[in-house]
Amino acid sequence: MASPTIKLNSGYDMPQVGFGLWKVNNDTCADQIYHAIKAGYRLFDGACDYGNEVEAGKGIARAITDGLVTRSELFIVSKLWNTFHEGPRVGPICQKQLSDWGIDYFDLYIVHFPVALKYVDPETRYPPGWSGESGQIEFSNAPIQETWTAMEKLVDGGLARSIGVSNFSAQLLMDVLRYARIRPATLQIEHHPYLVQGRLVEYAQREGLVVTAYSSFGPLSFLELDVKQAVAAGPLFEHPVVKSLAAKYAKTPAQVLLRWATQRGLAVIPKSNDPTRLRQNLEVTGWDLEQGEIGEIAALDCGLRFNDPIGYGMYVPIF
Amino acid sequence: MASPTIKLNSGYDMPQVGFGLWKVNNDTCADQIYHAIKAGYRLFDGACDYGNEVEAGKGIARAITDGLVTRSELFIVSKLWNTFHEGPRVGPICQKQLSDWGIDYFDLYIVHFPVALKYVDPETRYPPGWSGESGQIEFSNAPIQETWTAMEKLVDGGLARSIGVSNFSAQLLMDVLRYARIRPATLQIEHHPYLVQGRLVEYAQREGLVVTAYSSFGPLSFLELDVKQAVAAGPLFEHPVVKSLAAKYAKTPAQVLLRWATQRGLAVIPKSNDPTRLRQNLEVTGWDLEQGEIGEIAALDCGLRFNDPIGYGMYVPIF
Repeated sequence: MASPTIKLNSGYDMPQVGFGLWKVNNDTCADQIYHAIKAGYRLFDGACDYGNEVEAGKGIARAITDGLVTRSELFIVSKLWNTFHEGPRVGPICQKQLSDWGIDYFDLYIVHFPVALKYVDPETRYPPGWSGESGQIEFSNAPIQETWTAMEKLVDGGLARSIGVSNFSAQLLMDVLRYARIRPATLQIEHHPYLVQGRLVEYAQREGLVVTAYSSFGPLSFLELDVKQAVAAGPLFEHPVVKSLAAKYAKTPAQVLLRWATQRGLAVIPKSNDPTRLRQNLEVTGWDLEQGEIGEIAALDCGLRFNDPIGYGMYVPIF
Repeated sequence: MASPTIKLNSGYDMPQVGFGLWKVNNDTCADQIYHAIKAGYRLFDGACDYGNEVEAGKGIARAITDGLVTRSELFIVSKLWNTFHEGPRVGPICQKQLSDWGIDYFDLYIVHFPVALKYVDPETRYPPGWSGESGQIEFSNAPIQETWTAMEKLVDGGLARSIGVSNFSAQLLMDVLRYARIRPATLQIEHHPYLVQGRLVEYAQREGLVVTAYSSFGPLSFLELDVKQAVAAGPLFEHPVVKSLAAKYAKTPAQVLLRWATQRGLAVIPKSNDPTRLRQNLEVTGWDLEQGEIGEIAALDCGLRFNDPIGYGMYVPIF
């Protein structure tokens, strides 16, 4: 099956369910993308910081060569890393990322974090990551408006069809909306039952942005990173509320968590290495939870954020 | 006694304890200020929105005429209301507010909220409040940078010696710090044991801003506004942790709450109509809680915010 699409404020249609490339290994990335396309995935959510855009592009190219799909049927997302926030850096790095993917436009290009770091030449270190050569965080003074204006030029120049933001809070998003000539099409945020962010989701949706949830399975994605709150939090797949709904609807706990998001209009970008789960994760539309059940899941909210620079030992208090 | 002062990043000294003018009645305002000056207060924290700047100015004038104090011994704070965020509106409204006070400079002038509302002519309605004539919120597209640039010109022109912000989150403050030619000297936020905002306080202080706490007594200020969370929350003066520390140090619960803030470097702006409490609230420096006791009070944090436009029925999801 294929995912339904959502109309963005840019006029383009975005698949509601996609495949997220965070932590996808370089040696398996091309194959995973190829198999995901076979399974019906059309949206791939990448980023400079994930360090696998070349391999992702190879998977895409093979699928196109083999006739599984055409470029125009795909929806390819990437992100501007923190070290490229200065206006004149945005175009060139987007070009480099497109070249890594082997494509000539992104369907959606996103400001990854509201954090401007000192420029790092891609020849020196790529992806640049959070810390400079010194191991310290080095900030840049590029305001978000400077970055956003450069993002808008990507649309003008045809490098990106839609542009968006990620990890922005309501106050900062509100400011972007004051000056945006081209409004962000999407807001991508950490979103799961332990971190519902109901006000932010409602605000973004009211303003016509599509909200994309990352880390829909909560702590699961962060166990391998040794994020201590993730180890301490109970796995969501084992939570009685989630398990009982999975039993009731004859779905997996993962499907319940994804449907909880998609039914409220969010897009999701799970990943899996397992062919069965890959298919299951795509089947998270077309059946409904009851409103009360959506509320039961939302009631697990405890403001528990896992993807936090401070949790990784970097003093960047954006949350 | 007088309050000790804190050195601002602008080079000026600000009293650490001041008198807040929010909800001070027009008919008593001049007298309250006069008596507060007699009691030793030197900082007065006003705002366009409080609707009592003319009366506040009368109290100041009388105290100066009577020789209690000179203008240069006072530290007068006011705030830019949301409807005056557009660059060309900032200078004229600051001038009007100075004229209401009967003074020729503010010691500190603050952006009240990170919310830009449609301009309202002061001849039409003053103070303008949150909603337009329609009873609806009407936003303006003035970005914070436009507002801040105009605030900087107040310093250039001598209308304000220092400038600051209020109710800003870390992400937005971080953006202001990227482009500020004159950095904010202070960040004023709701701060009490039920809403500690430890990360925001730490970030602002590390960046050299003085954090001023408002509503230091938590729910107390909001009971008269019928804020339902305030009615539901237990009064902090009756909280066992606060009461037992008050008993231990032979202070009032109010003094314990204020010292909990001042000992960590925050400024405070309580108000009182009662001469005894007026004096007591000023005596909140020069004695210390133990570090563990500061932690015990901070452990009451439950993210409970009272001063929230959404709580007042206005859809302005800044928090």
